[in-house]
Amino acid sequence: MEIDVLFLGTAGSAPTRARGLPAVLIRCGGEQLLFDCGEGTQRQLLRAGGLAAVDAVFISHLHADHLLGLPGMLKTFSLQDRDAPLAVHGPPGLRALFEVLAPVIGRLTYEVMLVELAPGERFEGTGYAVSAFEVSHNVPAFGYAVVEDERPGRFDADRARELGVAEGPDFGALQGGEPVEGAQGVVTPDQVMGEPRPGRKIVLSGDTAPAEMTRVAAHRASLLIHEATFAGADADRAALTGHTTAVQAAAIAAEAEVELLALVHLSQRYAPADIEAEARAEFERTIVPRDFDRVEIPFPERGRPVHVPRPERARGPSRQG
Amino acid sequence: MEIDVLFLGTAGSAPTRARGLPAVLIRCGGEQLLFDCGEGTQRQLLRAGGLAAVDAVFISHLHADHLLGLPGMLKTFSLQDRDAPLAVHGPPGLRALFEVLAPVIGRLTYEVMLVELAPGERFEGTGYAVSAFEVSHNVPAFGYAVVEDERPGRFDADRARELGVAEGPDFGALQGGEPVEGAQGVVTPDQVMGEPRPGRKIVLSGDTAPAEMTRVAAHRASLLIHEATFAGADADRAALTGHTTAVQAAAIAAEAEVELLALVHLSQRYAPADIEAEARAEFERTIVPRDFDRVEIPFPERGRPVHVPRPERARGPSRQG
Repeated sequence: MEIDVLFLGTAGSAPTRARGLPAVLIRCGGEQLLFDCGEGTQRQLLRAGGLAAVDAVFISHLHADHLLGLPGMLKTFSLQDRDAPLAVHGPPGLRALFEVLAPVIGRLTYEVMLVELAPGERFEGTGYAVSAFEVSHNVPAFGYAVVEDERPGRFDADRARELGVAEGPDFGALQGGEPVEGAQGVVTPDQVMGEPRPGRKIVLSGDTAPAEMTRVAAHRASLLIHEATFAGADADRAALTGHTTAVQAAAIAAEAEVELLALVHLSQRYAPADIEAEARAEFERTIVPRDFDRVEIPFPERGRPVHVPRPERARGPSRQG
Repeated sequence: MEIDVLFLGTAGSAPTRARGLPAVLIRCGGEQLLFDCGEGTQRQLLRAGGLAAVDAVFISHLHADHLLGLPGMLKTFSLQDRDAPLAVHGPPGLRALFEVLAPVIGRLTYEVMLVELAPGERFEGTGYAVSAFEVSHNVPAFGYAVVEDERPGRFDADRARELGVAEGPDFGALQGGEPVEGAQGVVTPDQVMGEPRPGRKIVLSGDTAPAEMTRVAAHRASLLIHEATFAGADADRAALTGHTTAVQAAAIAAEAEVELLALVHLSQRYAPADIEAEARAEFERTIVPRDFDRVEIPFPERGRPVHVPRPERARGPSRQG
């Protein structure tokens, strides 16, 4: 299964010329999960070529900059005659918000299923699950962990041959968990399979002050996407508003031993290069992605997560019409 | 007074890579008037350099694609510590809509004055007025006419000299409407001033089927900005949905004898060049502006309205940040 992350909006609170409001698209195999949906997300998705296929939405908290793109995106799906139901997950209050927005959204061609999550609740996808965990903002707010299902251990083909298993269907049976007949009697999977391998994990902090739950959820994550609304010098202000500084986010990444840290929810107060430098002093493997940048998450045995800069064509409107 | 029009969003219903949702900014001297505010308008304004200074908003009708940019824009003004009140005008239902959106918008640093207009009601600006007129859509919908105040007639300096008026302050007094002493007695303004000249006029159709009121309001307008949601071949569908074809819009422009017709609210069904060609067959002085294109409206005696293509820098995010 391929897993990658597309940064659709990396600004906090207000957009800039270069950065849209919060939205991250995570692709797990054939499924596309949208985390937060700030104003303009449908157009960012369009530019990135991914509008058609959002399979589930997860809202971190019910602040306007994280959700005002929802009504328009839902309406556009309807104009495209979508018929697949769409689950929108979020903290308690999500239903009440949708009741408020219902007259603006109007009728849709498909069903929107609203799922108010409790911390710890899971959404089960195909080959992965998304869990919500509670973080620390000035309203109820979640982080999310996208966790690939545990993968079977590595198959030791040499050992299977030693045990007299015939190459071919019997190899497949062992990898599928079934015992087979070998030269010296029955061979069981545990004789030829290594320990199950943990799946890849991506953790999104949402808007939050430094939170113990983020540290726990992010333990050995392939990628931690953490907000960094403030620079270290403004730690007081970060604390006051329930946000995190770049240095604090880096400290969490270091303690959680993540493979890569991506900082988002940037304030226009700071130069992104300064935010990056601050964080890197604490945790070297930090990036500050731009909108439309991607991170590819390979299987750990094939290498570390890879930061892929956005293609130039995605940056602005096309030349035509 | 300089008057120009900045097209911020020229798509209808759903955005495309190249076209944002409906929004037009009209600058009359030092004041900036925003007509409709589709999702993403605040970012389009940012890219065009005009976010800081919206002085009044006019919503054509209460469909989501024309207003979902409002809550985010209002919030961003608040983040910028705006203190000038902002009047938002629109058809009846505007107040109820804002009651619905209030919890999403939250508290602002400035006052939003909601003005539900009746057809014919006017907003008086500095040197111009905006009048609402009723058009024909499937919900209550307005077009707007932005009309510059009548300008005094041309001052005939030669005639004033003939009448023995001394050049200098007396010339100014006559142009200001006051009689002065000439060589052969009192000289009154009407002896040296031409007929008052009508102000420039820009008319916006909003979303509408071909409407008699648009024709009337647009009579001899400098610029008619008309929706053209459908091509001529789809006239049935236009009628069914309360929209106009490019050909119909051109016919209105021809009958109203406007200087220039700009077609907006384009559907992605058609190539903009085809829409333009259809309309031009009926009314030659038609343009299909792209987002960030402008139209400058000079005084009529100085020439026709000028279509100014967008600067390249406005098209995409900046290279920095």
